[in-house]
Amino acid sequence: MYSEKVMDHFQNPRNVGEIENASGVGTVGNAKCGDIMRMYLDIDNDGIIQDCKFKTFGCGAAVATSSMATELVKGKTVQEALEITNKAVMEALDGLPPVKVHCSLLAEEAIHAALWDYAQKH
Amino acid sequence: MYSEKVMDHFQNPRNVGEIENASGVGTVGNAKCGDIMRMYLDIDNDGIIQDCKFKTFGCGAAVATSSMATELVKGKTVQEALEITNKAVMEALDGLPPVKVHCSLLAEEAIHAALWDYAQKH
Ligand code: FES
Repeated sequence: MYSEKVMDHFQNPRNVGEIENASGVGTVGNAKCGDIMRMYLDIDNDGIIQDCKFKTFGCGAAVATSSMATELVKGKTVQEALEITNKAVMEALDGLPPVKVHCSLLAEEAIHAALWDYAQKH
Repeated sequence: MYSEKVMDHFQNPRNVGEIENASGVGTVGNAKCGDIMRMYLDIDNDGIIQDCKFKTFGCGAAVATSSMATELVKGKTVQEALEITNKAVMEALDGLPPVKVHCSLLAEEAIHAALWDYAQKH
């Protein structure tokens, strides 16, 4: 049912945690399943994302997509990060079953919310 | 949104793992969210549940209810364990939001499936 990459990122999630004094923080909820996700971004003066961490109450698919998404945004500019879609994250994980596609939206939306929070502060 | 007990069992889940040569193993899926859960029971010759472990791909509510359920079944007889409902598990956790009640069914069903597996072998 799940790819090896999904199981790897679920069992060994990258970048779980919080960032103190983060440049941007985004919290989103998923109406379909009631889960929540929070993303922390550390963005330097050149607008490069230096660090990214997340916390979630979501399922394995939410954990795996968030873990992969944090890896994808690190080192990117704000503009590049805005262009990372849940589709790209799912592709990087070799796919997700259809019933789990909505879980992958949590990561995309939380990153957007954190970037929006950053933009409002700058 | 979540009680302190839910957050405690989510963040420090009890009895996560597998039992080698378990007396009974039950694997169930949740059609609503596509999540899966596996329960392992170690039952002694007097029919007492000595150990119980679980693994899940489910969300935080699934983790918390399974963690609490494993604590509730330990030391119980097979008959007593069959009578533990998801309602009892939720009450022990001081409740769950309505959108998460279906997650608590995973633990109940997985314990029943593991007890059924045990009964078939004996
Ligand atoms: S949403 Fe699937 S177990 Fe909770």
